Amino acid sequence: MATVAPVPQGTRITICEVGPRDGFQSEKTFIPTQKKIEIANALFAAGLRHMQITSFVSPRAVPQLADAEEVLAGIDRPEGAWVTALVPNLRGAERAAGAGVDAVHTVLSASETHNLKNLNRPVDQSLAELDAVFDVLSGAGIVVEGGIATAFGCPFEGIVPPEQLARIARRYQDLGATSVSLGDTTGMATPLTVQAAIRAIRDAAPGLEIHLHFHNTRGVGLACVMTGLAEGVTHYDAAVGGLGGCPFAAGATGNICTEDLAYLLQESGYETGVDLDHLIDAAALAQDVIGRALPGQLLKAGPRLKRHDPELTLTAEG
Amino acid sequence: MATVAPVPQGTRITICEVGPRDGFQSEKTFIPTQKKIEIANALFAAGLRHMQITSFVSPRAVPQLADAEEVLAGIDRPEGAWVTALVPNLRGAERAAGAGVDAVHTVLSASETHNLKNLNRPVDQSLAELDAVFDVLSGAGIVVEGGIATAFGCPFEGIVPPEQLARIARRYQDLGATSVSLGDTTGMATPLTVQAAIRAIRDAAPGLEIHLHFHNTRGVGLACVMTGLAEGVTHYDAAVGGLGGCPFAAGATGNICTEDLAYLLQESGYETGVDLDHLIDAAALAQDVIGRALPGQLLKAGPRLKRHDPELTLTAEG
Repeated sequence: MATVAPVPQGTRITICEVGPRDGFQSEKTFIPTQKKIEIANALFAAGLRHMQITSFVSPRAVPQLADAEEVLAGIDRPEGAWVTALVPNLRGAERAAGAGVDAVHTVLSASETHNLKNLNRPVDQSLAELDAVFDVLSGAGIVVEGGIATAFGCPFEGIVPPEQLARIARRYQDLGATSVSLGDTTGMATPLTVQAAIRAIRDAAPGLEIHLHFHNTRGVGLACVMTGLAEGVTHYDAAVGGLGGCPFAAGATGNICTEDLAYLLQESGYETGVDLDHLIDAAALAQDVIGRALPGQLLKAGPRLKRHDPELTLTAEG
Repeated sequence: MATVAPVPQGTRITICEVGPRDGFQSEKTFIPTQKKIEIANALFAAGLRHMQITSFVSPRAVPQLADAEEVLAGIDRPEGAWVTALVPNLRGAERAAGAGVDAVHTVLSASETHNLKNLNRPVDQSLAELDAVFDVLSGAGIVVEGGIATAFGCPFEGIVPPEQLARIARRYQDLGATSVSLGDTTGMATPLTVQAAIRAIRDAAPGLEIHLHFHNTRGVGLACVMTGLAEGVTHYDAAVGGLGGCPFAAGATGNICTEDLAYLLQESGYETGVDLDHLIDAAALAQDVIGRALPGQLLKAGPRLKRHDPELTLTAEG
């Protein structure tokens, strides 16, 4: 078994902003392309460099992301930007190949039922079809980050065995992916499942960097980040303002929140490259565009050392 | 320096329910005494045994808790129950002495400005007055848990030095307290401040058990619990449904949520003694009584292995 070592303090942690993809795709009302670009640019201006900007999916399936090419062409990429898009199939890979992304995030589910429902084919067929997807992308010089949805549990089948994650990760490694991204699609990740998943993948596919993609559906998203850090993982996805959310659990929050994650990492002794005040401004812009309160907590409470009005009075609050 | 060892898996972690005190006190509308008793009883029925049930404060200062004696007299205490109340001064200690609590939670702030505003006296005066409070309580056979508010930061002064926590903890130890409770009054705790506070207190007052009382104001409450566990702490306060909240930060959540905490602990390999389904029922009752959506996430999303409707259709969600 691979040795487990926590991430040392002072390490630069990668935050990959997925709000423009995982967040926006859940929104029913079409967000104007120019607004999507403004939000992405504000996130870059706050110091974020990794961004999953859109999906190359059928516009019939996800009308919100029908403007994938325009968004990609419209954003201002700062020095060091790393822009990715989600691709569910060969058709998506072909669109991505000419669209100017640095990497593609492929996707299939660890659970049979979820893959059937989401991608309309069994897991083994999805795995077989990756050959053609990787051919197209490597031909275009595009890096592939191998995504695994329902990695910590399936809302139809329940528990997902780590061996299934290991099997998929090994296939990704054999195909030449640089990383594997474990998607907590419906917020079922817990410290023990995260630990087991990381260890199984490290054993099966030691050549892959592990990316963790948590949802805060059950309130433990950032606690799972603490487990990831204890297990040595340095890459986390998050969505500005905590955008996202599962359409099947009313009121449940979505992805872990980018600015809350950046705050946690900075206050745990890690480097993020992010200016927290500017990131909160970007979240306020996203909230304004979306038009409803987002679940992010820093957005409501402000930075840690924001002072109360000195005239406030209190009463024995304990 | 004391050695740091994480809490071993399988350990029983104490969850102290503080919703009836820290949660209810923030509610503007008076909650009928009988409803308070019903909620407390539902929490006991879910397996919780430690509960901070009320405060013995001036009814003018906190009218919501004017029924302290009636609530205490009305609850059904199961085998093993440990019922505490907050006491800010000698008058409160005298009321608590005859009211049938197992322990009293005293309170003073680590920061001068917060103590002046909350208790109307300097920290040193509060420390000096503890003699009389401890005399009354030990005379009545009541255990004292020494509370320190604003332990991880003050909303007026900013950073609170760990040396100040150490000084107060040592005073509590000298007086005969069994534990010290670090209160994250306005949600400023972070992994690094929690770690520094625990280590400073272990060095200064090794005879005291450390209790951690986090608010989720900035989203990192349960991440701070992970730090506490890594530092060997086995006692955490939480409020059912995530009740509480700071009246000065609109929309900010309050205490960490009891059922989300129990879920995290169970899914991290610890014992809690809690039946999660019954705990979610108790949270639903509290939400119903309070009459607005509470911040707890399990309350919205349900238990981890709750299945989706098998007829649901999905579309390339990744």
